[in-house]
Amino acid sequence: MPLAQEVLRGDFLALGRAISMVETGTSEGRQVLEAVAGSVGKALRIGITGPPGVGKSTTIDELCAAYRLRGERVAVIAVDPTSPFTGGALLGDRIRMTKSAETEEVFMRSMATRGTSGGLARATQDAADLLDAAGRTVILLETVGVGQSEVEVSKAADCVIVMLSPESGDGIQAMKSGVLEIADIVVINKADRGGADRLEHDLRTAFELGLRSRREVPILLAQANRGEGIPELIAAIAAFVSGRRAGGAFLERRRKNLEDRIKSIAEFLIQKDLWESEGSQGRIDASVQRAMAGQSPYASARQLLNEVLK
Amino acid sequence: MPLAQEVLRGDFLALGRAISMVETGTSEGRQVLEAVAGSVGKALRIGITGPPGVGKSTTIDELCAAYRLRGERVAVIAVDPTSPFTGGALLGDRIRMTKSAETEEVFMRSMATRGTSGGLARATQDAADLLDAAGRTVILLETVGVGQSEVEVSKAADCVIVMLSPESGDGIQAMKSGVLEIADIVVINKADRGGADRLEHDLRTAFELGLRSRREVPILLAQANRGEGIPELIAAIAAFVSGRRAGGAFLERRRKNLEDRIKSIAEFLIQKDLWESEGSQGRIDASVQRAMAGQSPYASARQLLNEVLK
Repeated sequence: MPLAQEVLRGDFLALGRAISMVETGTSEGRQVLEAVAGSVGKALRIGITGPPGVGKSTTIDELCAAYRLRGERVAVIAVDPTSPFTGGALLGDRIRMTKSAETEEVFMRSMATRGTSGGLARATQDAADLLDAAGRTVILLETVGVGQSEVEVSKAADCVIVMLSPESGDGIQAMKSGVLEIADIVVINKADRGGADRLEHDLRTAFELGLRSRREVPILLAQANRGEGIPELIAAIAAFVSGRRAGGAFLERRRKNLEDRIKSIAEFLIQKDLWESEGSQGRIDASVQRAMAGQSPYASARQLLNEVLK
Repeated sequence: MPLAQEVLRGDFLALGRAISMVETGTSEGRQVLEAVAGSVGKALRIGITGPPGVGKSTTIDELCAAYRLRGERVAVIAVDPTSPFTGGALLGDRIRMTKSAETEEVFMRSMATRGTSGGLARATQDAADLLDAAGRTVILLETVGVGQSEVEVSKAADCVIVMLSPESGDGIQAMKSGVLEIADIVVINKADRGGADRLEHDLRTAFELGLRSRREVPILLAQANRGEGIPELIAAIAAFVSGRRAGGAFLERRRKNLEDRIKSIAEFLIQKDLWESEGSQGRIDASVQRAMAGQSPYASARQLLNEVLK
């Protein structure tokens, strides 16, 4: 049976293989995506981001269990923006996610950065499409809130949850970093620690002061390690989604996300045409030669483009 | 007199206007670059990077004075990779650079990020070309050592100086971040503070352990605020450059830098063709429509490319 058929049946091994293909960006992977494209679009995609140690894994574990009790078929993609500048603790976190990891009911996958962060966002969206086509109804996309990665991955989500804790200046950092701009729901985890009320107050002030003007962003308190706040979070997600669906904003965001994604894919494809097609290195060398001889780099680049695209 | 002519004459106001044009990426700016392209290539381009507070501005101020005494015509481009994640302190630093800033002898320019970091690196290289064509013989490119920006800007330099101080774990951070990989010369500034010897030892160990295998990276001690270590730094730069010239590596790096630059410009130009040309939004909308109706995003993107490039 071809791989795409097995993916559509929801076969775990086939899904794993297909995701590996899109992760490495092979043409086989794109063929599978092509074959399943008509079956994509039913799953709810939920992005979860926040600083390391805030309790994302624990929360996701609880969400998985709760969604499964509601009859949903759940998948988790943990995006690991490992870079020389941050180091990746995410894969280690997986070990702590025992509740769901023990069963095949929840499909889990860590995706690591290979080269550019753009490539990681693209592969994450491709993987979500595969899981969607395979019949998963809730897809949780986890990113560590460092750098740009959470913004890129948020473009794959219908609803973005930003997690903070009262500790270690998370709130200040979040306000400075711009991550609150992408938040549809904020969860203050470890709410039993001192400072949770203060953080909530500061966040409400920040939101009122024009960040996300005129849109109410729910702020929930949670203690994920005790399961507290999880039912409220699921209710908030449901309320957000049904509100967006009613107003048409749900589909409009999907349309906008898809536009960004198609543009990013087009740039990826044209770059492959330009730099990896037959004879491209020879054309590049000639172009550099002309520039070394006094042609401007812009004229050299334009001539190179004309040669490849003719 | 057309702008390009005035730039070639070294006119300060004309240079400032032309650099503003390439900074905002206008076609007028590219026309000026075109007109002066034959006069580019004589200046020595020196990249200087390091964490905030390490003393880059003071060092650059001293370098400017020393190079001027040697009859060089100096320019400084301070690249400010301001982002929501770091905040930019670089423009503030300018205020402290009094020695050179008081005279028109040194051309100084801060360049701030506009959109992508790729755009900033491109504009920085364009500005360096303009200064080069205008007869500047030494161009100092300053970046704050945070994130990827220093790596990108290093691609514009013939020689990269990485500055560290014994304070606040600079050394560990530098080793982790990969910035040492681009260092041609390392300067340990504030060498009078405790820990300078230890940092030097650690760096030598790191270099010996295979980082930059088989290439000797000079490590200098300095107290830039007292002018100490500056003559040694200038001598180290001269020795590095003449060594590279003798072996052919100097031109080979320029060739490689130019190749990377032409590729980046080609990607920039094709993206403008794709997303900013007449009728592009209509084509994009149709493409998204097809994807919403079940075409895979890859097939949609490919079809979009074919439409634009036909």
